[in-house]
Amino acid sequence: MNKDRYFDKVLVANRGEIAIRVMRACREMGIETVAVYSDADADALHVKYADEAFMIGSAHPTKSYLNMDRILEVAQMAGADAIHPGYGFLAEKAAFSAAVSKAGLTFIGPSEKTISMMGSKIGSKQAMADAGVPVLPWTRSTEHDEAKAFADSIGYPVIVKASAGGGGIGMTIVRSAAEMDEAIEKSMRTAASAFGDPTVFIEKYLENPRHIEVQIFADSKGDVVHMFERDCSIQRRHQKLVEEAPCPIMTPELREKMTQSAMTVARTCNYENAGTVEFLYDNGNYYFMEMNTRLQVEHTVTELITGLDMVRMQIKVAAGEPLPYSQDQIICRGHAIECRINAEDPANNFAADAGKITRYRSPGGPGIRIDSCIHVGYSIPPLYDSMIAKLCARAMTREETIARMRRALMEYVILGVKTTLPLHYAIMNNPQFVAGDTHTNFLEEPAVKKYLPRYMRESETRMNQLADSLGRGKEKTIAVTAAVNAYMAAAAAKNAKGKQ
Amino acid sequence: MNKDRYFDKVLVANRGEIAIRVMRACREMGIETVAVYSDADADALHVKYADEAFMIGSAHPTKSYLNMDRILEVAQMAGADAIHPGYGFLAEKAAFSAAVSKAGLTFIGPSEKTISMMGSKIGSKQAMADAGVPVLPWTRSTEHDEAKAFADSIGYPVIVKASAGGGGIGMTIVRSAAEMDEAIEKSMRTAASAFGDPTVFIEKYLENPRHIEVQIFADSKGDVVHMFERDCSIQRRHQKLVEEAPCPIMTPELREKMTQSAMTVARTCNYENAGTVEFLYDNGNYYFMEMNTRLQVEHTVTELITGLDMVRMQIKVAAGEPLPYSQDQIICRGHAIECRINAEDPANNFAADAGKITRYRSPGGPGIRIDSCIHVGYSIPPLYDSMIAKLCARAMTREETIARMRRALMEYVILGVKTTLPLHYAIMNNPQFVAGDTHTNFLEEPAVKKYLPRYMRESETRMNQLADSLGRGKEKTIAVTAAVNAYMAAAAAKNAKGKQ
Repeated sequence: MNKDRYFDKVLVANRGEIAIRVMRACREMGIETVAVYSDADADALHVKYADEAFMIGSAHPTKSYLNMDRILEVAQMAGADAIHPGYGFLAEKAAFSAAVSKAGLTFIGPSEKTISMMGSKIGSKQAMADAGVPVLPWTRSTEHDEAKAFADSIGYPVIVKASAGGGGIGMTIVRSAAEMDEAIEKSMRTAASAFGDPTVFIEKYLENPRHIEVQIFADSKGDVVHMFERDCSIQRRHQKLVEEAPCPIMTPELREKMTQSAMTVARTCNYENAGTVEFLYDNGNYYFMEMNTRLQVEHTVTELITGLDMVRMQIKVAAGEPLPYSQDQIICRGHAIECRINAEDPANNFAADAGKITRYRSPGGPGIRIDSCIHVGYSIPPLYDSMIAKLCARAMTREETIARMRRALMEYVILGVKTTLPLHYAIMNNPQFVAGDTHTNFLEEPAVKKYLPRYMRESETRMNQLADSLGRGKEKTIAVTAAVNAYMAAAAAKNAKGKQ
Repeated sequence: MNKDRYFDKVLVANRGEIAIRVMRACREMGIETVAVYSDADADALHVKYADEAFMIGSAHPTKSYLNMDRILEVAQMAGADAIHPGYGFLAEKAAFSAAVSKAGLTFIGPSEKTISMMGSKIGSKQAMADAGVPVLPWTRSTEHDEAKAFADSIGYPVIVKASAGGGGIGMTIVRSAAEMDEAIEKSMRTAASAFGDPTVFIEKYLENPRHIEVQIFADSKGDVVHMFERDCSIQRRHQKLVEEAPCPIMTPELREKMTQSAMTVARTCNYENAGTVEFLYDNGNYYFMEMNTRLQVEHTVTELITGLDMVRMQIKVAAGEPLPYSQDQIICRGHAIECRINAEDPANNFAADAGKITRYRSPGGPGIRIDSCIHVGYSIPPLYDSMIAKLCARAMTREETIARMRRALMEYVILGVKTTLPLHYAIMNNPQFVAGDTHTNFLEEPAVKKYLPRYMRESETRMNQLADSLGRGKEKTIAVTAAVNAYMAAAAAKNAKGKQ
């Protein structure tokens, strides 16, 4: 192995923008890259970006991107010495981390044990509560009397959750004692069928919390640093849509407490590599929810405020190097926002819109970062994540960052599929968002729902005009006043005279 | 005037990427923008980007972008309250600054007096020498005996320069006493015909100096800060091609001295707004050359290391605000490089290559910034500056920045015209450049000239492959080894079996 580049060849067990993100870091470090792809992704950019690419199966994830054996087979045959899982797919599958290690390769992420521990909601909650990290009041008791007594003691609403759950599956909100038994039964049923494990627990339900998460980084020597927090409160059905760093309501005192808690979480589970500790925040208090044992979609905003390359850091730490930066060297400067551009129609209940990109021009200039996997002529396969690009803006203040994001959204042209671009433009213009007054149900607020459509239409109209004007050439779609028209006519007449 | 946004409407008296750069800042600040354009630029992006756009004349600059009266007429009719000149065209024309002020509008740049003072090479050199700023040994004496005595005292070579000169015009190198008289005569003749002023002077000629410039910023209260230095040594015929910040050979001591000198220059000429003090550096010593009284093309790299928006700063300062950041708040973090992408054929003596862009995809991901004025279908008019895009990379160290730039250059697809992309790729791979060992004649060094072609061909081949693979779809151009092919065949056979 070349010591300067840490690994000779890295296989990226993922697709889309995150596969390209990882390969970019590899290429900058002089590491060769291996892509894997399903037959639905033969045209995908990550296939073309890699030094080598292997078709590993048919479109359904279980046949390709979730196919551990096949991926390991390819890694060994291609001579890769490490595997980066990206996010999603196999990234948080403990067995994959174990299998990679067992095959003698390096898994760029935490150990099997750590992933397993954080994969159980009950287990991780108990462990973190024991370590002194704030958690929401909760109980494992699902017996009628005990469950009711718990809810009475902390007050309704409460929520029943599946221990093995994720993505909102198996969650039932309970607003009164009368609903309790049915809710427990329903969650258990769902959990048993979805995860093969009916274990549920009950905890306090927060109506409109903020989602605040802390980025941590740990090396194999047990050193842990944090990289500040992100606010990801703007969500739709537990899917983040807008993320920002730092959190708009953060104070030095709260940050000190939350980052210390996050680092305690990391130490408690012997964490290694990049990880995210997710908290709910409500009314001055914060509560540990779960840890994501992988790189996040929204690591970009942390990179933008710190100026650091987190994938490069991941690769170094996975190679056994100490953390490349001490806590003192990790500085937050400015503010950053990410908008997830999904191929969905926000005006039509976010219906996925797979299709062919017919026109594409990305924004640029100061403080803009684009991570995308699309180009003109690319057909978005309908089977996978609808996210086709991440648009990030950074500036010195939150206000300037919002203005910059608005400007960038006005420059972005994606035609051929409906996207969330207009929704983001509307959010960036919403006074409540601008004031930083957001929470996880923000998009469900009647005032917000009423506010958005006009701005979405405005955004869409403008994008079409811009696209038309770029395509058609001579025709101008710029706003011209009557005075301007008169002036131009006069100038033309003058010119004509001058030429005679 | 709206106090929050400083101006209501700004006219941008320029074209190309810099017009868009300025309009981006305006849009982010809520300021309306007015574009002016020549009839050759009806399709130009800056015309489409602006809120209003006025055709002001025919293609030749004197009829349009240099037509002060016409531009002022448009500004007043459109109700603009300020004019940003960009760089080039009218940016350093003292009479334009005066005319804008006389018309009751704000010129976003320094005063007529400052521009005039720095426009005279002899005048500014004398003033700065008097203020204690290092200058090269020089003399105004062009009498035979005195000129020879001067050259004898400091040693050959010396150079004869036109006081009103620029862009290398009127410069003659003198390598021995025998060449002196003819050189003086030649420079005077050229100066008289090019600038209407035969005044020349003689100074020490440095064979292979570095070009190091300091960015300064001054407000109307006389406060001055610096924003560190840029190294712009990679040039071709006095045109910068690659710029970086900070300078790779900078030391804290040298920076302290050079930035102090630059701020002395700014104070001596009562500078206001953004300006650049250019120095030549040789063997531990630096010498004031001239001050550029405007925003530079390469302000981008300064923005990337400081995280600040210099056009926003320009607008605020022009509106009479104090400097928005104190010297302590202006921090250098990381390293940044800019490559100027020109529509020129570097393999064919940099012949300009106007034409139509047939394919375009810009790079992205961490630390990449693009400022461009092109898009698919855009025809580059042959009359103007050949620069069509600026590609910038920023990372934590110079080494990482070079690797990132290389990676970005490998992602950039511009087809339809020849560009300097392959040359930049070759430079980024050149060991001498990587070692930071550059100077203004770097590209003329035989070893460098011999080194570049192979990498240029490699770069061009790869761009065509990438473009083809994005365009053609199913066909793959990725490198596949025999082993991979065998594996894929086996996998396909297995799949086929599984489906039976």
